[in-house]
Amino acid sequence: MQAHLPLLPPAERLGEPDYPVPEASPHTPAVARLFTFGSADERRLDEAVDRIAARLHARDGIGSDVPYADLARRQGASVVPAHPLPTEDYLRALDQQVLEHAVDTASPSFMGHMTTALPYFARSLARLVTALNQNPVKIETSKALTILEREALAMLHHALYARSPAHQRAHAQDPRSTLGVITSGGTTANLTALWVARNAAYAPSPGFGGVEREGLAAALVHHGERRAVVVASSLAHYSLAKAVDLLGLGEQGLSLVPADARGRADPQAMRRTIDEHRRRGERVLAVVGIAGTTESGSVDPLDALADLAAHAGAHFHVDAAWGGPLVFSPRHRPLLEGLRRADSITIDGHKQLYLPMGIGAVIFRDPRRAAAIEKHARYIIRAGSPDLGRRSVEGSRAAMAIHLHAALHLLGTTGYAELIDAGIARARVLAHAVRARPAFELLVEPTTNIVNYRYVPPSLRPRAAAGTLTAADGRVLDAVNERLQAQQWARGRSFVSRTTLSYLPHIRSAVVLRAVLANPLTTTAHIDAMLDEQEALAASILRDLPLPSLYPTATP
Amino acid sequence: MQAHLPLLPPAERLGEPDYPVPEASPHTPAVARLFTFGSADERRLDEAVDRIAARLHARDGIGSDVPYADLARRQGASVVPAHPLPTEDYLRALDQQVLEHAVDTASPSFMGHMTTALPYFARSLARLVTALNQNPVKIETSKALTILEREALAMLHHALYARSPAHQRAHAQDPRSTLGVITSGGTTANLTALWVARNAAYAPSPGFGGVEREGLAAALVHHGERRAVVVASSLAHYSLAKAVDLLGLGEQGLSLVPADARGRADPQAMRRTIDEHRRRGERVLAVVGIAGTTESGSVDPLDALADLAAHAGAHFHVDAAWGGPLVFSPRHRPLLEGLRRADSITIDGHKQLYLPMGIGAVIFRDPRRAAAIEKHARYIIRAGSPDLGRRSVEGSRAAMAIHLHAALHLLGTTGYAELIDAGIARARVLAHAVRARPAFELLVEPTTNIVNYRYVPPSLRPRAAAGTLTAADGRVLDAVNERLQAQQWARGRSFVSRTTLSYLPHIRSAVVLRAVLANPLTTTAHIDAMLDEQEALAASILRDLPLPSLYPTATP
Repeated sequence: MQAHLPLLPPAERLGEPDYPVPEASPHTPAVARLFTFGSADERRLDEAVDRIAARLHARDGIGSDVPYADLARRQGASVVPAHPLPTEDYLRALDQQVLEHAVDTASPSFMGHMTTALPYFARSLARLVTALNQNPVKIETSKALTILEREALAMLHHALYARSPAHQRAHAQDPRSTLGVITSGGTTANLTALWVARNAAYAPSPGFGGVEREGLAAALVHHGERRAVVVASSLAHYSLAKAVDLLGLGEQGLSLVPADARGRADPQAMRRTIDEHRRRGERVLAVVGIAGTTESGSVDPLDALADLAAHAGAHFHVDAAWGGPLVFSPRHRPLLEGLRRADSITIDGHKQLYLPMGIGAVIFRDPRRAAAIEKHARYIIRAGSPDLGRRSVEGSRAAMAIHLHAALHLLGTTGYAELIDAGIARARVLAHAVRARPAFELLVEPTTNIVNYRYVPPSLRPRAAAGTLTAADGRVLDAVNERLQAQQWARGRSFVSRTTLSYLPHIRSAVVLRAVLANPLTTTAHIDAMLDEQEALAASILRDLPLPSLYPTATP
Repeated sequence: MQAHLPLLPPAERLGEPDYPVPEASPHTPAVARLFTFGSADERRLDEAVDRIAARLHARDGIGSDVPYADLARRQGASVVPAHPLPTEDYLRALDQQVLEHAVDTASPSFMGHMTTALPYFARSLARLVTALNQNPVKIETSKALTILEREALAMLHHALYARSPAHQRAHAQDPRSTLGVITSGGTTANLTALWVARNAAYAPSPGFGGVEREGLAAALVHHGERRAVVVASSLAHYSLAKAVDLLGLGEQGLSLVPADARGRADPQAMRRTIDEHRRRGERVLAVVGIAGTTESGSVDPLDALADLAAHAGAHFHVDAAWGGPLVFSPRHRPLLEGLRRADSITIDGHKQLYLPMGIGAVIFRDPRRAAAIEKHARYIIRAGSPDLGRRSVEGSRAAMAIHLHAALHLLGTTGYAELIDAGIARARVLAHAVRARPAFELLVEPTTNIVNYRYVPPSLRPRAAAGTLTAADGRVLDAVNERLQAQQWARGRSFVSRTTLSYLPHIRSAVVLRAVLANPLTTTAHIDAMLDEQEALAASILRDLPLPSLYPTATP
């Protein structure tokens, strides 16, 4: 055992260095100045940045009306300059060429996507996160921030699963437990959840090293299965398509079942699909429920889907990226009945947690579930360590958990409840206004705070009211609403997005306007002004393009 | 074609709403205050945050000496409070309980990981990124920031591939082209590259819908292959193990070939491995070269690996997360000979681009290569749009590209060259000091700015010098260096990391200290003080734990 290892002495092993004895030369003044903390330069830049942000924020509307294509044409040489630009010159160019033409996602008239005004502390904390520049992937580069991140995840776990104080105490800081994983957003959260589901389904067993080790093809062969699938409603977020592609299941491995007339998963149809998959020798890895569909804000019947997942022996994942924070609202929480039965839940920070872009989370009911994806490295995240990088898609990352931890404390459940309730009330204000205006048609009664509607040209209103719209009429409606939405965005006054709904009864597919009412600064006046603008824009579109020209000709 | 669609009139279709006519109620003063832009509250918090950051920065050393376990025990109730905490109270608690015990990754004495002091503009811009809160996944939530992101990627593309100005003009802003993808870090950049490689290798062909659609098992069956593998040296970053697991290849699908005595890939051995895989009916999807290994900073012979990839008909990916910015240094650029032959290159922002945590990129030589992973959604990132979310692992994300765009302009190639050259010079200062001190053994001559060495107790120095260390001696060396490194971190004065090297000739495996010399604030005095502390710590460890106690007994 005490065998000699022929370890050569250093001098002989390495030889002499192939470079002269080095000297640590001081940096040039320019570079040294850049790396000085809290200098006058830094204060000056801070003030300039604040002036720019204040000016952009004070503007009405959602941004400039310079067309995107014009901006793209103006762009630079795409070459890193040899010599540094003076900071003032750079900032001035950045402001005039770029920031002036950013989108004011915080504007009360920006009602189109899940980006909204932020609480003021988010801006201060962003500076703090960068000033600290921690890397919570390992405790050596984060220490107390690792603990804070685990605490923030435990708080989310409690909000979603409501386990006992003893459960929280036992798992919040235990390195063997994973109550959740911070991700860069909802997409990687969904990916993490399905990765865990796949690896847990194909865990090591006698004669098989597990999918993690041997790969998916070997897993299917070992289990005698033809394929593995994830089942969700047709309103599933496109991140699930990414996830099944990434995980080697192929997009055919995402089995989408038509939603019902209000955009909710249909458990009977899903059960038939699940049974059909199993009859064909295909494994159902996961059933995914959606708490807040991206297109309509609808919420799946989670309790029934939990039953289905149990029936299929599958992982039950809930994509609550949008709707998860409804747990904070006593009024609307009942929509989430069954959520606690989920094996994993995706939450997205920049949506209804009112955090800045760049943070999401996946929360696991079972604190040991994420062991299925554990990885180690020799220099960090060693086995048994509290290093957070052991169980995550991502590696090094910022301490964005500070934003989450702070917002949970500075808003509290009552603050979030107020925001959720107000957003849903605003959606109803918009739905009511849409019903009240003959120019518009409400397509789905909003469940939460997303509203789907469309503009109907005067000449089509009688047929729309009588239910006698033709397929050609449908194409005209699509074309008008597409133009309307694109032009409204380009003008920079107010904004809703658009999507194509295909789950509506009696409409195969329709382009619809999609309003997201999450910004606490949005008032009834903003909503009315946005609809007024749409009516005016539509009138002008129809003036320039009389309806007949929008009817497709018989031969294309 | 003009068939009637039985579209029912809205009132009948939706019925009356199941809620009373809503009112948009104003927010409570507490919530309204939180969402006010640029208030006195915000200014006060900004100032408090700046005071904290300045105080933490002014401390000597790398952080507090309170043990991690003590901090973990002090943590909270893991429950979201019902009522918001006053901001001042929250910040005070955060400061005392968390921030005071963060790690000062910007300290000149923090020489252990790839996190360093940042240029001052990073802190100002972090506030700007959050104040704008753009989402570059789609132009509707970013507009000019989409263009900026594409420009920043084009600048990196030019730095790495040096294509003509006409090439840059043609592709920088063309939505069909993808010069690169911004990711949250190097891990997702590597994942993106291998995802592209896998999907391009198993593209749709007659009788096969492609791996993207049909999945990996079907792809292998269609091509009559037993398995698909990625070949790299044994010093590959652990993100490659994550990637092959995620992609369904299994960790056995990562074929690691022993590196040479200086930590570089061995092309002859790799060629034998590749040929063996192909002989066994296994597809080599990608050959991965490493430009800057995480453990030793060594650089693979990229030109030879490019030949190998061509020989294997495989995608050639270079993980240049650490070493990519060497392209900016005329002195050290020759190490990257062959880099331009890579199909894809990973760059990590927080490493030698001196950006804050949270941004990486993968750059593609062929601007059409990323089409292999394109995804769409009905409500955004529609086919043909300039939306950046079409070709990426991640979905919604922050406009971190501002940091990249700014740093490339504010440092320039000369600024980066100075930083790279100074880092490598510092590594040589440390290597020289290690050679000069009998207490230490230099294990690898540093190629770039990472130094591997270890402490050798006095009683073992003669055997170490004579090359007669036993296996038991090796275990003692491992134990002493492990303790030394852990204690140095815990004391909070200075810091290097540690790893286990297994590619050294004549040493099966050795725990070594790993210093990363990237911080421009680090001087020779900091390096000497760090080594002095290690010698003192080692002496105290040996006092408390005399060597015999570290020798493993015959029976464990």
